[in-house]
Amino acid sequence: MELLKNRILKDAVVITDQFLQVDSFLNHQIDPALIEEIASEFTARFLDTSFNRILTVESSGIAPSVLTGLKLGIPVIFAKKNDPSVKINDAYTEMVHLWTKKCDYQISVPSKFIKKGERILIIDDFLANGSVSHALISIAEQGGARVGGIGIVIEKGFQEGGKILRDMGYRVESLVIVDNIKDKTIIFREQH
Amino acid sequence: MELLKNRILKDAVVITDQFLQVDSFLNHQIDPALIEEIASEFTARFLDTSFNRILTVESSGIAPSVLTGLKLGIPVIFAKKNDPSVKINDAYTEMVHLWTKKCDYQISVPSKFIKKGERILIIDDFLANGSVSHALISIAEQGGARVGGIGIVIEKGFQEGGKILRDMGYRVESLVIVDNIKDKTIIFREQH
Repeated sequence: MELLKNRILKDAVVITDQFLQVDSFLNHQIDPALIEEIASEFTARFLDTSFNRILTVESSGIAPSVLTGLKLGIPVIFAKKNDPSVKINDAYTEMVHLWTKKCDYQISVPSKFIKKGERILIIDDFLANGSVSHALISIAEQGGARVGGIGIVIEKGFQEGGKILRDMGYRVESLVIVDNIKDKTIIFREQH
Repeated sequence: MELLKNRILKDAVVITDQFLQVDSFLNHQIDPALIEEIASEFTARFLDTSFNRILTVESSGIAPSVLTGLKLGIPVIFAKKNDPSVKINDAYTEMVHLWTKKCDYQISVPSKFIKKGERILIIDDFLANGSVSHALISIAEQGGARVGGIGIVIEKGFQEGGKILRDMGYRVESLVIVDNIKDKTIIFREQH
């Protein structure tokens, strides 16, 4: 997605070779017009599949999910992050390991929102090691739903999450894939 | 807003006389089509004022804010919730007291996103005692911005937050005001 690549080149801040800060347009301050373009791109890429619901996680996944849900005409569920020690009633839960902060947290979705047999579209802002995607897949599957696609705004191609998910047979559509960040230069993967 | 009243009557769950659960369409599962109507209503109500940015708080404020920001053509900033013991650098912070859980948390916005002299529209899903609104006002004012309006999806009219904010001179536009919940019946305030 050229528009997104150009925005990343213009406004993203390279903090380290591993960490790209996009808080001025994606995940702290949000540019709604860009998010609408992102939603249009997800809608176009998944046009051949019919989904019942979008599943994401708070907070940065919400904006692209809601605009995609509006275009697809389906509800959006967002998993909430909880303290792992808290027991959540009537909910599907899963653990997520946050590599950047070296800590674990729990995500949860009330079981009433996951319907058996439904097809779920997972959307998130970033894909790195894939632990959030795996947790969302687990939550969908705990409720008897199946994941028909995973839409990612920015995939870190130098981490293994995307490869593992694709090798498992999941269809992952990443709007941009950053293959490398070296000497503050961002190298995108060519996609067709 | 009749559409929203009808949706509340249809799908909200009265948990207690103080607590209305709207997690099936507003703050856990989201109905994007309803959120778009909410955004249209906010846009219409604040048509006479020009805003530079929307300020909200994660997570439930994000969806209505992004769709309103799209219609108004302005960016959305969401404050993040942090552990009060964590020092956040280069950010404006404020404490929020959560009455329902009897605990305090901190919300923060990077100072680079609040610009001196700008006019801010605050949006949130609920207004009860008003502690989130006061914290967002404080953050805007710490950065030299001023709050030109507060848009609320559901105001609990039996709590004092809305009255205090209006008495202070803030323009609060609540799409529905619940004046009372008694014996599982929801009483809305008439608005013109």
